[in-house]
Amino acid sequence: MATFQDWARETASFMEKTLADLLPAADTVPTRLHDAMRYSTLGGGKRVRPMLAFAAGEVSGASVDRLKVVASAVEMIHAYSLIHDDLPCMDDDVLRRGRPTCHIEFDEATALLAGDALHSMAFNIVSAHSLTEKSSDQLDLIRLFSEACGSRGMAGGQAIDLASVDRAISLPELEHMHTLKTGALIRAAVMMGAMCGRPLSEIERQKLDHYAKCIGLAFQVVDDILDCESNTEKLGKTAGKDKDANKPTYVSLLGLNPAKQFAEELLRDAHQSLDVFGMSAKRLHELADFIVKRDY
Amino acid sequence: MATFQDWARETASFMEKTLADLLPAADTVPTRLHDAMRYSTLGGGKRVRPMLAFAAGEVSGASVDRLKVVASAVEMIHAYSLIHDDLPCMDDDVLRRGRPTCHIEFDEATALLAGDALHSMAFNIVSAHSLTEKSSDQLDLIRLFSEACGSRGMAGGQAIDLASVDRAISLPELEHMHTLKTGALIRAAVMMGAMCGRPLSEIERQKLDHYAKCIGLAFQVVDDILDCESNTEKLGKTAGKDKDANKPTYVSLLGLNPAKQFAEELLRDAHQSLDVFGMSAKRLHELADFIVKRDY
Repeated sequence: MATFQDWARETASFMEKTLADLLPAADTVPTRLHDAMRYSTLGGGKRVRPMLAFAAGEVSGASVDRLKVVASAVEMIHAYSLIHDDLPCMDDDVLRRGRPTCHIEFDEATALLAGDALHSMAFNIVSAHSLTEKSSDQLDLIRLFSEACGSRGMAGGQAIDLASVDRAISLPELEHMHTLKTGALIRAAVMMGAMCGRPLSEIERQKLDHYAKCIGLAFQVVDDILDCESNTEKLGKTAGKDKDANKPTYVSLLGLNPAKQFAEELLRDAHQSLDVFGMSAKRLHELADFIVKRDY
Repeated sequence: MATFQDWARETASFMEKTLADLLPAADTVPTRLHDAMRYSTLGGGKRVRPMLAFAAGEVSGASVDRLKVVASAVEMIHAYSLIHDDLPCMDDDVLRRGRPTCHIEFDEATALLAGDALHSMAFNIVSAHSLTEKSSDQLDLIRLFSEACGSRGMAGGQAIDLASVDRAISLPELEHMHTLKTGALIRAAVMMGAMCGRPLSEIERQKLDHYAKCIGLAFQVVDDILDCESNTEKLGKTAGKDKDANKPTYVSLLGLNPAKQFAEELLRDAHQSLDVFGMSAKRLHELADFIVKRDY
């Protein structure tokens, strides 16, 4: 069996090719829009969400042909959210994945529309390809996906984030915000990947969802730690910007070392939730370690 | 049978109630986001797309319970597109439906997210409710809907529109732009409404799609005529702004009277396409007349 590093590299490279094939060609009209969609989706990113979808598919025996579709859809939503998040009216950021953000490379209107078009395209590919044995299960998958993106998921988390700048918020409020802002899409990636295979039992579904919840939160805690400890070059995005923007973080609320301990606790909890899956959860275990121990 | 005016009024009032019930309550967190979503979707609009979905449902005998879902989903996409279209980086407009635009009433970031959340919510409701006998047909419906919204549909049309400002474009280019920008969602409203009932024959499907294409284009031609002839108070949005923005319109390319003749030709063509449906297309005929003969 491939080492985690080899598997991660192969999955990232497979995703690059899959996304390049799925996205409209840059020379089809409207070319500038398609160019911006490709610019923001291809050529970078850790591909954590696609890796989670593939790893979750291993516990239910899902096929690569199905998993690559849900992985791409989740990555398109992620790319759209980053484009909109970087806009001047939101975080106003100029650097992403070591390159100019979409509205800097193109223009604000094109960036806005590229995000919108990626958003629609994600729902297009999860409805245009066969992903489950029963079509009714695929409708469930799309419902879960759309909930994760909306006002009670990712977009809602961003709204709460906006409202929390320059305001003292509590730890539960911070956790609620991140559970929506980054957690919802991570959970969707895991659950959708698993849904492409054999049906899970209720207990399996709950355990997998708990795993996803833990690593989603851990992902954000580690992001906060890196934003504080790392530098712009290594991150490929502006370091220290949360502090500059006076945004509450796990580091600002807990302190640096307690934040690190919290990430470790979440990691242990995530590992334990996978017991029910035995060896089929190998990649999910490895991804949990990767998410907490990464340095970029 | 109710007169068209009564039916239109009842449908608009039923849609207002349906959307108010479906949208998250304004007092649920994140409240400002939910407030903005409701502000931009409720309390106005001609509800042309919902009316088209209901009217198309009559030719296939679709139930109101299904039609109200697709009508709401289409209207949420329409509302999101207006919010994003009005943003400073796009049309930079302050007035919509006689009220301040979303980013004026709230702020730019909230408007951006309200549009994004409505976009996700539209796909949520078409996957969470049962709309067709067979689930596989519902997946087709969602696929068609997502295509209408994306880079080869509405978002693509907006991108072509952006690229055409201050540039001489030909009549076929203008038609292509509008076929995507406003036409795609109007066609989706008609086709999705019909798909909620009995399956259509291939010829019925083609005729209905041609009807939708004709009235979609006519809608835009009439918009251009009204933008030139009407005033801001009557329109509820800034009149004459296309001319001010140096945007090509049917009036600027064809002249006022030829534009009016073109709208009449499209109307005749739309009526003819409905022959195959007999009396069940009564409301579709009336809506075609309404779209071309409206003065706001």
